[in-house]
Amino acid sequence: MPETDLAGPKITLEEFQELAWEGVPYVGQLGPEVLRFEAGEIAVLLPYREILLRPGGTICGPAMMALADIALYGLVLSMIGRAPLAVTTDMTVHFLTRPKPGAVVAEGRLLKLGRRLAVGDVLIHSEHDDRPVCHVTGTYAIPPDFG
Amino acid sequence: MPETDLAGPKITLEEFQELAWEGVPYVGQLGPEVLRFEAGEIAVLLPYREILLRPGGTICGPAMMALADIALYGLVLSMIGRAPLAVTTDMTVHFLTRPKPGAVVAEGRLLKLGRRLAVGDVLIHSEHDDRPVCHVTGTYAIPPDFG
Amino acid sequence: MPETDLAGPKITLEEFQELAWEGVPYVGQLGPEVLRFEAGEIAVLLPYREILLRPGGTICGPAMMALADIALYGLVLSMIGRAPLAVTTDMTVHFLTRPKPGAVVAEGRLLKLGRRLAVGDVLIHSEHDDRPVCHVTGTYAIPPDFG
Amino acid sequence: MPETDLAGPKITLEEFQELAWEGVPYVGQLGPEVLRFEAGEIAVLLPYREILLRPGGTICGPAMMALADIALYGLVLSMIGRAPLAVTTDMTVHFLTRPKPGAVVAEGRLLKLGRRLAVGDVLIHSEHDDRPVCHVTGTYAIPPDFG
Repeated sequence: MPETDLAGPKITLEEFQELAWEGVPYVGQLGPEVLRFEAGEIAVLLPYREILLRPGGTICGPAMMALADIALYGLVLSMIGRAPLAVTTDMTVHFLTRPKPGAVVAEGRLLKLGRRLAVGDVLIHSEHDDRPVCHVTGTYAIPPDFG
Repeated sequence: MPETDLAGPKITLEEFQELAWEGVPYVGQLGPEVLRFEAGEIAVLLPYREILLRPGGTICGPAMMALADIALYGLVLSMIGRAPLAVTTDMTVHFLTRPKPGAVVAEGRLLKLGRRLAVGDVLIHSEHDDRPVCHVTGTYAIPPDFG
Repeated sequence: MPETDLAGPKITLEEFQELAWEGVPYVGQLGPEVLRFEAGEIAVLLPYREILLRPGGTICGPAMMALADIALYGLVLSMIGRAPLAVTTDMTVHFLTRPKPGAVVAEGRLLKLGRRLAVGDVLIHSEHDDRPVCHVTGTYAIPPDFG
Repeated sequence: MPETDLAGPKITLEEFQELAWEGVPYVGQLGPEVLRFEAGEIAVLLPYREILLRPGGTICGPAMMALADIALYGLVLSMIGRAPLAVTTDMTVHFLTRPKPGAVVAEGRLLKLGRRLAVGDVLIHSEHDDRPVCHVTGTYAIPPDFG
């Protein structure tokens, strides 16, 4: 893995949260909570709400994809600083098992930090159960001044 | 491509919409509109709302992923009938260009319909502009009684 | 789709074939044949050989992935010219049905041509059967001088 | 992660190697070596050969995809036993950095083992360098009698 920066993340948690929750209200409305925020490491909890359900009584895929995408955003900004225009270029999601209704947690790690692209992956699990329910790999394009 | 069924979709548009919008409220709250619903073909419009924006003044990725996922759901149900428990097993998204603020349309086609898995892809474009802004490929698992 | 260049591909077929078959001998040893080579459009045939088989008597996945990757390489070079260092950054493959032993054809189209990234997709089918056996989406990074 | 089976893999290393190298000669010709083979865990080394190169003097993508695919095959057979007809249904590859000419090692882990589908991921690194050069996620379909 790319070495994480001992000096800590290049954006504060407060700045990231403002960018993410106010900047992307379709995700922010869900009230995610950042549990861990280090340079190159992140954990974000999605609280349970009825709006997250899908047939079968499980958390819907789009909510988990939104959670993973925002976790990757935080992961990248933790390494490059306040770059709101960093954008996802691709994301691949595997839904592994159906989580029970309840909060889920996304844990992200950085796989690559280049000048132009950053790649990370995310495992999502239920709050009190470590078994993965969803795996995501994604790429972010880094704006020219931040690479 | 798998041949489409001349007899029409195996679920009515009304049934699909009820399943999709009420069954998956995180997507349904966005007020999507089905523009075309045939066996193995679908087009769904996502109306523009401010909640869809992200930094840079473009439509956020999670909204486009939600739209693509629900379009694939409709595509699969159009071929197998009312199977609410059909679930996404994987989805890969490529964000191509940033759509302007405005409605976007997802057009889906079926690539494979097996007994256990169905695969389709989706191109998303802005409402009055055919150029693709997002490409998605996804797999749905078909419940045992419907394959 | 990005508009194709009416002036034709920016690299000749001969140059592309030399780059691809001699430059990537693990693919070139299979003796692929380019059936169509336009700016933004390509078709490549993989002749049948016993080395391509896998258990079940079908064409192995790695051979189809190699074919798709080289088709995407040609697609990108047809638009940007002789850039041997253009490299794949991601590739997603869906195996749809098992092709019979026999030649397969990959048909590629360009979904995006940016300054830094190009995205395309490829459908693979058996030589005398249009039904898709494999779908691939991939991204190439464009070297700085070619974007 | 799914629990690994303390009783060891459900297929012997010898049986797996025979299936993989003789059954899939396009991969077997490269002379891969299995370094670790446990239930739900695998490491496979791809020895360096000139045929693996691509422009830029690095290992070509198709060789790394072939290596990852065969590692996933071993991972799945280690859990379900001798099922030659287990087949890849999807695979997503991210090329992270360009490995130097030299052997590369694929390390795979199981993310899900269901009755019908198994999902795993693979990190590839150069032989004497732990930094990842390639990340792969893939799904295998499990034949009916083995799920």
